[in-house]
Order: sequence, then structure tokens, then C-alpha cells
Amino acid sequence: MKIDGKAFRSIWREDDGSRRGVVKIIDQRWLPHDLRIEPLRDRAAFAVAIRDMWVRGAPLIGATAAYGVAVQMAQDPSDALLDETWDVLHETRPTAINLRWALDDMRTRLRQLPPEERAEAAYARADMICEEDVEMNRKIGEHGLAIIRDIAAQKAPGEPVRILTHCNAGWPATVDWGTATSPIYQAVAAGIPVHVFVDETRPRNQGAQLTAWELNSHGVPHDLIVDNAGGHLMQHGEVDMVIVGTDRTTANGDVCNKIGTYLKALAAKANGVPFYVALPSPTIDWTVGDGVREIPIEERSGSEVTHVQGRDAQGRIVTVQVSPDGTGARNPAFDVTPANLVTGLITERGVCEASPDALAAMFPDRAPGR
Amino acid sequence: MKIDGKAFRSIWREDDGSRRGVVKIIDQRWLPHDLRIEPLRDRAAFAVAIRDMWVRGAPLIGATAAYGVAVQMAQDPSDALLDETWDVLHETRPTAINLRWALDDMRTRLRQLPPEERAEAAYARADMICEEDVEMNRKIGEHGLAIIRDIAAQKAPGEPVRILTHCNAGWPATVDWGTATSPIYQAVAAGIPVHVFVDETRPRNQGAQLTAWELNSHGVPHDLIVDNAGGHLMQHGEVDMVIVGTDRTTANGDVCNKIGTYLKALAAKANGVPFYVALPSPTIDWTVGDGVREIPIEERSGSEVTHVQGRDAQGRIVTVQVSPDGTGARNPAFDVTPANLVTGLITERGVCEASPDALAAMFPDRAPGR
Repeated sequence: MKIDGKAFRSIWREDDGSRRGVVKIIDQRWLPHDLRIEPLRDRAAFAVAIRDMWVRGAPLIGATAAYGVAVQMAQDPSDALLDETWDVLHETRPTAINLRWALDDMRTRLRQLPPEERAEAAYARADMICEEDVEMNRKIGEHGLAIIRDIAAQKAPGEPVRILTHCNAGWPATVDWGTATSPIYQAVAAGIPVHVFVDETRPRNQGAQLTAWELNSHGVPHDLIVDNAGGHLMQHGEVDMVIVGTDRTTANGDVCNKIGTYLKALAAKANGVPFYVALPSPTIDWTVGDGVREIPIEERSGSEVTHVQGRDAQGRIVTVQVSPDGTGARNPAFDVTPANLVTGLITERGVCEASPDALAAMFPDRAPGR
Repeated sequence: MKIDGKAFRSIWREDDGSRRGVVKIIDQRWLPHDLRIEPLRDRAAFAVAIRDMWVRGAPLIGATAAYGVAVQMAQDPSDALLDETWDVLHETRPTAINLRWALDDMRTRLRQLPPEERAEAAYARADMICEEDVEMNRKIGEHGLAIIRDIAAQKAPGEPVRILTHCNAGWPATVDWGTATSPIYQAVAAGIPVHVFVDETRPRNQGAQLTAWELNSHGVPHDLIVDNAGGHLMQHGEVDMVIVGTDRTTANGDVCNKIGTYLKALAAKANGVPFYVALPSPTIDWTVGDGVREIPIEERSGSEVTHVQGRDAQGRIVTVQVSPDGTGARNPAFDVTPANLVTGLITERGVCEASPDALAAMFPDRAPGR
């Protein structure tokens, strides 16, 4: 999407006079305050970028790892280096499912080729992984756009469709479009007026730091709100729909997403506001049924709660402590929204109910035991 | 309550060798990082303390104003100065209902006395206003303690009663005990183990800055959580009850309180967790029925959302910006929890249902038209 009028992806190859160009990324640690673009020239640089969260978001991590393999293959395409690269990159974020998927995909394909063909094939496959991600999210956006269009049709001309979102399921977490943001960008492109309420999303402020930044950069009207405010806005008819992303959706349609999503789903249900979840189908975990009971929720460091990062009056990025010394914190990072609070799941194949039957009907090729 | 083992109130007279002692307060602007105790020696000092929010919380503002009148009467007890003091102190926080009430109460009583008797009477009445506030909150605590005791009785011995609270309805907002915290302090005094989950309460972080501070200072076990986390904890059976305060409760039992309270009430209802509101009866607004429709909600500056105050690594209290330049914010300061989500109202007269009939039965002397 656009940053100040110029189209960007979150990872791209840029011409530097060399045969295959240089891979560049946005170092997202400095958003929203600084737009720092960094070249990744060797495997070590890719490992740092993934491990230290210069890039984040499951699809982008996978794409970055794929280019990391390609860069290594251009330097030394031997079997030994292929295996070593798998190991080095995998241990940067060992629980990231897309990272493992991308590394397995690359190694399996490249093993079958003679070493001298590997670099070319690796770059081509990494490009393809990016394109597939872009295409999947573009389709999610198309299906979501239809929902936004229906809501707009019930309003006076020019009156914006007011959409609330939580956390960041935006283009910097993918290669382009984002998941929850894709319908929003497509609505803007289609000339449908929208206004987005952006939950700041404590403790890590991904809403304030990433979603507000990308909407601001692309020129989408929005307001930042504290996570506490969405219920009040829905109660007073100020929200037409909610769209969020998801880290994992179960075969039953239960939605695991950033902590606080569940509270917004409760408020949406109580106030008759449609609550949609945008997800590429690889996010569906067909092995899990009851999300509330079965999905283990990561507890992160309490310091994310007791401390906040921001930019001080001198422009420095600093961390401040908001609570007293001696006070500890609990920090569950995700919660599960039960399927009965979800109006619909927006996938690349279309929109379906959040239920085992509807999911299996939409993905008959993937749902097990049906 | 206690700060590091020493009993404190939020305002008190201290012996300084003078006839009536000196009025002292805690300058709450520096909590939780600094405990700064300040003497208020003349009317101007009282006006600054109220206007610049060295003291906050409706009951404490009223008590502070009463002592401000007393200090002035000791210097010049004339009718002219009495009227001027009313004006000067009233304009410090013109919308604070307790401030006006305290100033009216003082002026009406003192007018009836000859000037030479006013100082003595004013100090006595200010002391009495404090004692009445302490007594009202002590009684709220007694009635709330009975609820906590019942929950504790259903648990294994030694297992804590886990209480979630939002914002600060603690002793620094009153003269002592607090409202929502009073049952908690009394449970601790009665030897009932408790564990408090403290919502940080964005945007102004009253939970992190005040509630965590006072619980920490008194030695009450607690964990700070982000406002997003309560729903997940309730869904997983980790919360036994919710107790919050209120800025205004209607004759129907609808509860206006800090933004985000409504979301916690929805989660409590969905998960069978009892949701209580602690309130001194002057907080009941008998003129309002439907709180959601009738109570106007203050919208505060967006800078409270885009910026956060805390202590930096050098110990300085600084403000940092968390969102990008160019992003605006909506900042509704309160929301209304409908009566049907409230398990009970804990008042100084006892606990009643949040309904027009139950409130009128508890306060037959105040409910109009019954």
C-alpha cells in the first residue's frame, strides 16, 4: 500500500545493478516514528531481521526467510549450506509456523535441483511466495469489500462506513494489503467512504504504532481510541462493523487473536454490530475444535504492561514505567472469541459462517474426516 | 490506609505548634513514582491544589474545599471574605458536584455565626465532613466484606478471593478506605486472602498509577493487567468477582463509570462472574432514569490517547507519544453499564439490586415520586 503517495510492499527486490538486485525491508521497530528501510545482503542480516523483529507478522516472516535462503544459495548452493541455512533461520523464531513452512518448502524444492540451478530457482520461488500472499489477501479484500458495499448502500451518499479494528492485521504483517485491512483499502479504492476506529491494543500498542501508521500513510480516515472505548461507541451506534485478523482459527470457528478481541466481540453481539474475522486459510487449525479449552495462551513478560515505548519531546524513542516499583503484572497475549460471537469469516474463497459445517463446506479439500 | 506500614488519610490536620495545626495533603500528581506531602497554608494554596489536581476524587475535593474555607476564616472571617472564598474555590473545578456542595454547606453554616466564632466552627465542620466520608466508606466496606466472605467460604482455606477492579475508586479519591477498595481493605483486615487484578485504565492509567500504588503501599496482593485482559481471565475462571466505583448511578440502576467498565460488565455477565458497584448514596442521581440515553459523556483531549506519562530510566517523569504524527483520537471518558449487567449496588446502607424498585426501597427518604 502507499506511504505518502508511493506504493510499498513490506519486502521487495530492488535494482542495485547486480544480477538479482537487493532484498529490502522496512525495519518496523521504529514505526510509527521513523521509516527506516534496510537492505538484507547476507544470511546473517536475514536472521537478525527476523529474530529481532525488524519484520513481524506470520506471512512476512515466511517471505523473509524464503529470500534469506535465496541469498545464501547465490553465495553457496551446496546441500550443507542449504541445511545450515534452514537451521540458522528456523531458530530465529522457532514457534512461527509460517517460518517453518517457508523453510521446508524452499529446501524440499531446492534439494531436487543441481546446485548450479538453485539460486535462480530460490529467488523465483521466494518471489512466488510473496505473490501468492498478495493474491490471497487481495481476494480476502474483495470478499470483504462486498460486505462494506452492502453497508454503504444503506447509508446516505457520502456517509462513511465506520469500521472498528483491533491490533494490526495490516499490510506490514503481510507482503501487501493485510488481512483485516484489505477490505478497507479496497473500499477506499472503490470510492466508498470509510472511517476506521483503531484500538491502540495494549500492551504492545500495535494499533497505535502500526495500524494508525499505515492508515495515516495511505490516507485512510481514522481515529485512534483506547481499548476501553469500543463498547461505548458500539452502544451509541457509532460503529457499523468490526473487522479483525486472527492468529489461529479452529475447525469450530473459534477465533484466537490479540488479547482484547473477545471483549469487542461481546460488545458487538450485545449491540447488533456485525463482527467479521479476515483470515487466509492457512490460519485455520483443523486439528483444534474448542478454542477456549484447547488453545494454550502465551503469557508474556509483565514488563510489557508496566512499561510503554514512545517518542519523547526531543524525538528520542524511550521506554517509560507507568506503574509503581513492586507491582507485578499478568500478561496473557491472546484470547479466544467463541464462534457464536462471530458474524462471518472472510477467507480468500469467500465469506462463511464461523461453524464446523460452514468451514468444512468452504474447504472440503482440507477439512479432515469429512 | 497504610503507606509502607504507616496509616495515612488523603487529607489531615497535623500539629505544627500552631493553635489549629496545618492541613496537609498528598500531591497526587507524582504518584506512583513520588510520595510528595504538601502543607496548604492559605486559600491560594488550596485553590492551586484543587485546580491543578494535586487532589482529585469527588469526596476529597469537597473535603479540601471545606478546609480551604476554614483556613481563610482563621485569617479573616468577614462576610465579604466568606463570599469571595466561595467564588475563588468554586471556580477551580466548576463542574465538581461535591465541591459546590461542600462550599454551600460551609457558607450556610458560617453565615449564621458571628465572625469571631467562624474559624473554630469551620475547622470543626471540615473535620466532620472528613469523618462522615470515612464513615460512609467504612460502611460500604462492611457490606462488601460480607460478599467477599461468602465467596471465600466456598473456597479451600487459604485460597484467595480474586477481585477485578477498573480505574481508581480507592482511598486517595476519598478521605480514607475508598469505595470499591473499602471491601478489599476490610477483607484483608479480617484475614481473608484476596488477590486483586488491577485494570491499568487507559487513557489516564489511574489503575496503574493509583490503584496499583495504594494496594502496593498497603501490602495487598495484586497484579496489574491491561484493560484488554479481563475478559480472558473471566473466561478461564480466574476472577471471582468484579468491584468498581461509579461517578453517577441513575434511579434505574444504570452505572456511569470510567470508560471500559461496560466491557468488563459484559464479560462478567457472559461468564457468570458477579459484578458489583460500590457507591456512597450521594452518587445516585435520582433525576436520571435511562443512563445510556440520558447521561452526556465527556469527550476529553485526544492527547490523552496519543501520549502516555511515565518515569524514564533516569527517574524523570516524562510524556511520550505512542502514535504517528497526523493521527487523531476520540476520547470518551466514561461509559454507562446498563443495570441488567450489575449484580448489586454496595451502598452505605447495604447491598441492593440495580433496579428502580430496589433503590427506592433502600432510600425511601430520597427517591422522588414514590
